[in-house]
Amino acid sequence: MRNFNEHNITEAVLARLDASRSSRVKEISGALVRHLHAFVREVRPTQDEWQQAIAFLTRTGQVCSDTRQEFILLSDALGVSMLVDAINHEFPGGATETTVLGPFYVADAPEVSAGATIGKQEDGPTMLIEGRVLDTAGSPISGAIVDIWHADADGYYDVQKSPTAYSGRGRVKTDAQGNFWLWGTLPAAYPIPDDGPVGEMLGLQGRHPYRPAHVHFMIAAEGCETLVTHLFLASSDYLDSDVVFGVKDSLIEPVIEVSPGKTPYGAVVETSVPAMRREFILAPRTRPRE
Amino acid sequence: MRNFNEHNITEAVLARLDASRSSRVKEISGALVRHLHAFVREVRPTQDEWQQAIAFLTRTGQVCSDTRQEFILLSDALGVSMLVDAINHEFPGGATETTVLGPFYVADAPEVSAGATIGKQEDGPTMLIEGRVLDTAGSPISGAIVDIWHADADGYYDVQKSPTAYSGRGRVKTDAQGNFWLWGTLPAAYPIPDDGPVGEMLGLQGRHPYRPAHVHFMIAAEGCETLVTHLFLASSDYLDSDVVFGVKDSLIEPVIEVSPGKTPYGAVVETSVPAMRREFILAPRTRPRE
Ligand SMILES: [Fe+2]
Ligand SMILES: [Fe+2]
Repeated sequence: MRNFNEHNITEAVLARLDASRSSRVKEISGALVRHLHAFVREVRPTQDEWQQAIAFLTRTGQVCSDTRQEFILLSDALGVSMLVDAINHEFPGGATETTVLGPFYVADAPEVSAGATIGKQEDGPTMLIEGRVLDTAGSPISGAIVDIWHADADGYYDVQKSPTAYSGRGRVKTDAQGNFWLWGTLPAAYPIPDDGPVGEMLGLQGRHPYRPAHVHFMIAAEGCETLVTHLFLASSDYLDSDVVFGVKDSLIEPVIEVSPGKTPYGAVVETSVPAMRREFILAPRTRPRE
Repeated sequence: MRNFNEHNITEAVLARLDASRSSRVKEISGALVRHLHAFVREVRPTQDEWQQAIAFLTRTGQVCSDTRQEFILLSDALGVSMLVDAINHEFPGGATETTVLGPFYVADAPEVSAGATIGKQEDGPTMLIEGRVLDTAGSPISGAIVDIWHADADGYYDVQKSPTAYSGRGRVKTDAQGNFWLWGTLPAAYPIPDDGPVGEMLGLQGRHPYRPAHVHFMIAAEGCETLVTHLFLASSDYLDSDVVFGVKDSLIEPVIEVSPGKTPYGAVVETSVPAMRREFILAPRTRPRE
């Protein structure tokens, strides 16, 4: 095994994978080698372009921190995250559609009670976020955990402003009727962080870095597939040019104005307030939890 | 442009590249998207596998430092570096063959005179490194810069031991006859750094991390393509399983024993010593310097 050239190196690398620890490692490694080599053969990079690619990947890794995940941004901006999402969420008709997780999810968001205020006053205008969680048979799911996170009225997430002081983020359980409600903030459309390698790439590609305004939801319940999705504000800009390709028509909701009184989801409204509401339908679990 | 799924997302991402700053950016970005999406469609990663890939790339970037380039190691171990090398060095017959740069090249190695000692005593047994630089017509090239670097007898490069104290590394100019000579160290076969993500990958793939013993050369001269290559020690292990696929038969040289006296390349030998010698033939420059 010597004397490798453009024509025999791919087979040589594949042959080295025979002792892989698992068939999945061999399958993924082999596919990576074949597709990566095919990419290189097609674009025929100069040594200088190869160096630039190495430097780009290195900078992308080095800008990552506890509160910034540049490789997720890269995956998002190249449409890879939406593709992986599509492959993993071929849910039955009727279940709420999924979209990307995004880089601003935090695993241990504060647990809050129904009616809690998760948006700080300085974050912008208050918005009611309410709804119900159902299964595909239409039965309400009580005790579902609804993890909600959104940007503020300036388009920034809490973790971009401070790594520790959460706002616009919380986990609430559905009640016996499957309902939940929280006081959040009317979120703005925002650019993904574009002062790093991904912003540099978007600039070279002549693309804007914006996402339409949205609220993130991750909803988990026993016996159901965990739903990772957004609601997009129908009035937002960029619905047709989301930098991460996340928009689906079924996930666009108007911001409504809710009058004082009790809402169908149990929220107690004292003065007229903007709101987003939605009934989420979870697919039954079809595979073991990852 | 909404409602992307497994079947339409690739075209959607490609359509966003229309305003790219240059046709080369559009070409590389488009090919990257197509091949990356094809890879994802083939292996159908779970969300958890996607997260593992994000984490792997992040760790790879974060382990990089002034003296460690893990993404070059990754490129090397996947055969990408040798493929890029092959694509860029279709030299005319007769020119010395090329191989990978590797991650231990240092741009500003010390400039030394013929006969200098670049190997420290504690690095291991002394080895004479000598030779001549010629053009493809067989004429000696004087004033060529011969940049040499090699591991020590334990298989470590200077920059792995100390980021600042160079040893086993130097740049020497050829004399009027195209000759050069230096005192280095007999280098050992070595594992590429395997305590990071690339080592982890090799472990999963059931591969050893070793390279056969070698000396690196980068030789630059006016009017010629810069030659990046190695000489491999004919007595070394791993010539048939170099982890970075760099071995070519034409680059394997025996370590000879040189007796006291003056060598054909002008080296002055006082006691019998191991040596590697080679006549390097540079290809004429066929394109502007990068
Ligand atoms: Fe977001
Ligand atoms: Fe080396």
